[in-house]
Amino acid sequence: MAEISHRKARTIIAKTLAKGREMELKPLSVVVLDSGGHVKAFEREDGAAPGRFDIARAKAYGAIMLGMGGQAQMARAEAQAYFMNAVNGVYDGKVIPVPGGILVQDKRGNTIGAVGVTGDTSDNDAEAGMAGIEAAGLAGQP
Amino acid sequence: MAEISHRKARTIIAKTLAKGREMELKPLSVVVLDSGGHVKAFEREDGAAPGRFDIARAKAYGAIMLGMGGQAQMARAEAQAYFMNAVNGVYDGKVIPVPGGILVQDKRGNTIGAVGVTGDTSDNDAEAGMAGIEAAGLAGQP
Amino acid sequence: MAEISHRKARTIIAKTLAKGREMELKPLSVVVLDSGGHVKAFEREDGAAPGRFDIARAKAYGAIMLGMGGQAQMARAEAQAYFMNAVNGVYDGKVIPVPGGILVQDKRGNTIGAVGVTGDTSDNDAEAGMAGIEAAGLAGQP
Amino acid sequence: MAEISHRKARTIIAKTLAKGREMELKPLSVVVLDSGGHVKAFEREDGAAPGRFDIARAKAYGAIMLGMGGQAQMARAEAQAYFMNAVNGVYDGKVIPVPGGILVQDKRGNTIGAVGVTGDTSDNDAEAGMAGIEAAGLAGQP
Repeated sequence: MAEISHRKARTIIAKTLAKGREMELKPLSVVVLDSGGHVKAFEREDGAAPGRFDIARAKAYGAIMLGMGGQAQMARAEAQAYFMNAVNGVYDGKVIPVPGGILVQDKRGNTIGAVGVTGDTSDNDAEAGMAGIEAAGLAGQP
Repeated sequence: MAEISHRKARTIIAKTLAKGREMELKPLSVVVLDSGGHVKAFEREDGAAPGRFDIARAKAYGAIMLGMGGQAQMARAEAQAYFMNAVNGVYDGKVIPVPGGILVQDKRGNTIGAVGVTGDTSDNDAEAGMAGIEAAGLAGQP
Repeated sequence: MAEISHRKARTIIAKTLAKGREMELKPLSVVVLDSGGHVKAFEREDGAAPGRFDIARAKAYGAIMLGMGGQAQMARAEAQAYFMNAVNGVYDGKVIPVPGGILVQDKRGNTIGAVGVTGDTSDNDAEAGMAGIEAAGLAGQP
Repeated sequence: MAEISHRKARTIIAKTLAKGREMELKPLSVVVLDSGGHVKAFEREDGAAPGRFDIARAKAYGAIMLGMGGQAQMARAEAQAYFMNAVNGVYDGKVIPVPGGILVQDKRGNTIGAVGVTGDTSDNDAEAGMAGIEAAGLAGQP
């Protein structure tokens, strides 16, 4: 298994949204990217702002392109802000380095995609996304 | 009803993909945009090329921004290619003027979103998308 | 095997360049992209113009994003020029639809990357690239 | 000698990767640019994140365009962050001002290209790159 499947992507989104409702979060938007950073599936709940696709994708895109989850990206941005600004230059401004971007790995530890969640606090976004990934039988690096 | 709902978007995608399988089409990618041209939901079937999100969105985005379906856009492009090139200048190159981009309207004729389908021939893409829209109890302008 | 390896990429480039010298072609530039369109390896021979990286990558990038080799892309561009112009809009102008862009597939027919060759005529570029791919024990779709 | 050769570029990359393995670094990506900032050669090891080409090139590109290695660029960024942000404005965001970008000079002190290394810490990246440049009989300004 080297690429996240359509079926797994749908499960991740459905379970992330279910977790968000259980946690009583604001309306969420959830994207699943493949291991090359290309969109596999996305859903935006009613009541979420129209621009949420771009934010969800930017969280997940940074995880893929840099090979690290949102927490590690945020740590780097806080330690060395000019570095993350420069990184965004080379990726055409498409990276948002905060929690909610999660690397998705199969059982052998290979990266097969990434998930991006946005709508509530970054930490809540990440918690819901991790629940979705685990419900699909996969591992997440938040 | 002024905006396509999350529930309707999911139905459109599921039924478009089902129609594609029934018609034995190549793997499809289907996007649903809201009435402002922003992504509401998207799914890409296994086996579809990674760049299909951009094509699906561009078909639907042109329908929203110009207020006309892909068939009308294609007719205009064939009659006046420089006009469509210029249109793409103002929309940052994000419009693909061929069938498979479909305006979605409620029962009173209000535009509430658009669907973009890609993967097979443009005409087959449009046929599958129309089936999905109708299965959701909505009307499409292909 | 789901992703082209560093070792295979190096073999493809070395053997493509060797074939070019055997055919007495002009200096070549050869890129190998992974299945997500990201650069895995590249070499530009002495005497090739400085901008050849972008052309090599654009030939291979179109193959990945559209899921078709350069010959099929060129046929589509010649039949429906405004469509290929519009496709380049959504891919930020990064696609050059001519021979020399080649999809690379493993023995089970899965796309694991793409090769882009530039420097001589498009047909000669493609012939050299196919020789490189086959020398690496892989299949190419030119 | 005014321009880095294909042969020298290949030696630099092979020896930089060998040094990285000897130092037990994470998988590296190494680019060689010519004196005009254009890509001459690149390799990405298996296991490196897909976006590493852009980072490697941005380290080397800044060295060429500003005529200073990554250490000097980082010092400037830390002393005057807004200056480096503005520099990135004029270079389209394509500069990452940290160690791992290295100017390459011939025996007479002429700049003939630049190397960019990424994958481990910036300091380790630079150390591996310097070893590669010296193994090719050239001098580096890290």
